[in-house]
Amino acid sequence: MGKGADAIGIGLLGCGVVGTGILELLEANRATIEARLGAKLEVRKIAVRSQDKPRKFALPKGVLAAKGEDVVDDPQVDVVVEVIGGIEPAGALLRRAIELGKPVVTANKALLADPASDLVGQAERRGVDLYYEAAACGGIPIIRVLREALSSDRVVALRGIVNGTSNYVLSRMHDEGIDFAVALRAAQEAGYAEADPTLDVGGGDAAHKLVVLATLAFGMKIAPSHVLTEGIDRVSAQDIRVARRFGYVIKPLALARQEIDGLDLRVHPALVREKSVLASISGALNAVYVEGAMLGPCLLSGLGAGALPTAMSVVSDIVDVARNLRAGVRGRVPSAALSSERLAEPKLASGRRGAFYLRFDVQDRPGVLASIAGVLGAHGVSIHQLLQEGSGSSPPPSGRGQGGGMESIVMFTHEAREADVLAALAKIATSSDLVAPPHRLRIEPA
Amino acid sequence: MGKGADAIGIGLLGCGVVGTGILELLEANRATIEARLGAKLEVRKIAVRSQDKPRKFALPKGVLAAKGEDVVDDPQVDVVVEVIGGIEPAGALLRRAIELGKPVVTANKALLADPASDLVGQAERRGVDLYYEAAACGGIPIIRVLREALSSDRVVALRGIVNGTSNYVLSRMHDEGIDFAVALRAAQEAGYAEADPTLDVGGGDAAHKLVVLATLAFGMKIAPSHVLTEGIDRVSAQDIRVARRFGYVIKPLALARQEIDGLDLRVHPALVREKSVLASISGALNAVYVEGAMLGPCLLSGLGAGALPTAMSVVSDIVDVARNLRAGVRGRVPSAALSSERLAEPKLASGRRGAFYLRFDVQDRPGVLASIAGVLGAHGVSIHQLLQEGSGSSPPPSGRGQGGGMESIVMFTHEAREADVLAALAKIATSSDLVAPPHRLRIEPA
Repeated sequence: MGKGADAIGIGLLGCGVVGTGILELLEANRATIEARLGAKLEVRKIAVRSQDKPRKFALPKGVLAAKGEDVVDDPQVDVVVEVIGGIEPAGALLRRAIELGKPVVTANKALLADPASDLVGQAERRGVDLYYEAAACGGIPIIRVLREALSSDRVVALRGIVNGTSNYVLSRMHDEGIDFAVALRAAQEAGYAEADPTLDVGGGDAAHKLVVLATLAFGMKIAPSHVLTEGIDRVSAQDIRVARRFGYVIKPLALARQEIDGLDLRVHPALVREKSVLASISGALNAVYVEGAMLGPCLLSGLGAGALPTAMSVVSDIVDVARNLRAGVRGRVPSAALSSERLAEPKLASGRRGAFYLRFDVQDRPGVLASIAGVLGAHGVSIHQLLQEGSGSSPPPSGRGQGGGMESIVMFTHEAREADVLAALAKIATSSDLVAPPHRLRIEPA
Repeated sequence: MGKGADAIGIGLLGCGVVGTGILELLEANRATIEARLGAKLEVRKIAVRSQDKPRKFALPKGVLAAKGEDVVDDPQVDVVVEVIGGIEPAGALLRRAIELGKPVVTANKALLADPASDLVGQAERRGVDLYYEAAACGGIPIIRVLREALSSDRVVALRGIVNGTSNYVLSRMHDEGIDFAVALRAAQEAGYAEADPTLDVGGGDAAHKLVVLATLAFGMKIAPSHVLTEGIDRVSAQDIRVARRFGYVIKPLALARQEIDGLDLRVHPALVREKSVLASISGALNAVYVEGAMLGPCLLSGLGAGALPTAMSVVSDIVDVARNLRAGVRGRVPSAALSSERLAEPKLASGRRGAFYLRFDVQDRPGVLASIAGVLGAHGVSIHQLLQEGSGSSPPPSGRGQGGGMESIVMFTHEAREADVLAALAKIATSSDLVAPPHRLRIEPA
């Protein structure tokens, strides 16, 4: 393709949910896109695993290819778009495209978050555009906002809900009083969770997204290993019920904050005030607060997944890349907001402080509460609110609660050093009064 | 400045609140901006009305200029930044800069919305970059989102709160039960309203912003005269109290929607459900829902005004322009998302339908309610909910309400044709039962 060409050739790697969405969007919005870009976007080659699979869009035989390399190498392909997901073969194909000097657009958060892949560095050294708006929060333009709209500001904190599956599961648990396993099955049946949901409900997917966002926001070489990652799978219907009774909703949060001594990076479920905006982000919605030193807090929310919102982000990236191709510019905006040689090694915060929700499932014996409270006190953890109840969701039947039954003791602590809370819990866990390990969730100021 | 230069000269027209914010931000974020851009941003000339005024930032004498032309014409100035506001002299100075081939950054919504100025067309014909993120919603990057992030989508609707002053005044009225005049005075004392608040509380400022946003979103030549504009000045403490009793909050909305027969463009106060997200946007915050055909609804909210958030938008625009200068590209993205020759003449929607809040202040005489309801019914307007009360905020003292007193009849209608509602109100207004013209507010689905 020469500078100013009036058609840009797209090569698509993968044609699953998002790939099909891209084809649908290019068809539906063809006229609008051409009018804005002043050129056509033409899908010229698509790598698919099965060439014979029935598809929503009939594709000319010549467009389909069995091997990704045939797409990347095709001289008619000006921009390589990767929507396969996973580390390989996606990584090898993108590196091949970059080596050939072809700009790439990808939705692959796992690959971008993988320090070994170093896609950003490679694209930069080769002087090739790398765009990845769809790698976090589907249709929400959070990458572009961090990379371009905030180019004049320093980000102080990011805080949000970036995994729609986890949010959907917790929302169902919240609305229906059901347990995690039941809600997860419902999410799978509704198409909101994969057959293997580990990456979503375990927090890994959110951690990948946080790595991508925090790298842009803070200008540091952040990796998944820097993110404290906990899943939502240990949240119970009881936790949700008790939290609500105290005015909280449990949400799957991703947080990145510049503390005095370094970056605090976390993905975990947390209690947030039911009146807060994040509490109102339910179902498969995503939301991210960006707090800039000059901007103050700014919220973006919308559909964080789905074929068409995600395709929207991918195709807007293609338009951006096509503008650069037509203008004959490369690397106009650094892929990671900062040139990769300037990205700093992250210094991580230690000594986090915060309030906790603690649940102890115990034998109902005299002195148990005093003993737990004593250990917490000895570790400098003070209790703000307390609830003791039968461990089921209904009050204990008559005859129980006379000693010998099972009880749950729930505590909301004041702010304390996280290390102190964990040390106290480790000590309490050794007590024979407990019928299960102590359970804890963080409480986040809204 | 040559291509790839390592310093970009900025000329500033005006140094009031936003101009001072720009200087403060450039100082505070200097290192970050230089690292991202790979070049320095230097303010080389500033046009101010008074050279001797004491300023937050001491400026070298040689930088200040009495005449805007001296800034624009200075060969050391590569980018002209206008933060004077108003149509002239801002318009003449920007046109002069454009004629000289200098890229411009402006926060001037009135000028951008003024069809006679045609800044966009002029910049395009001259092949000069025109950036204006700060012209709507302060620090919220709504312009960049509409112009670039959604380049692959068709916008179906915009809906939001874009005037912080009006929102602040209504929030105070809502929180404190005070009347419009009292709340406006409080807003002026708190620095949230100008000495002459007409443009803000009358809806004109919001209409300018809606013109700028809707032009980008819908690709049409929209002007303020296309926007139905009503202010918040007729909203009373009683309206707010009654609305709340029925589960609504009154908010200053700006709306642009693609209807079957054309665009519906409106700025007015409206009742929204108290559980809706827009109801939770209080004080000086702004928020905009963008609904894309593929994206679905996406919300952006944050500080819609203030020196530093607005300066953040201005300086991010300067960074964008500087990247273009350094890369030797111009007009990479059309100023209005679409080249101005492609902007269509707007076709406006007619026959709007919606639900209304109606208030009739009447003499308490037998048959009044029946007569009003009769006129509404004859116009096909049916009543969903009704409240009759003494026109003060407390129940009528004993001895009143026996006939001869004053009463307010408040009605929430079902959805109806707006023209029918207005015709019915015009008819009712002629009745001698009314002690004031009928009062109406629109109800918006959240």
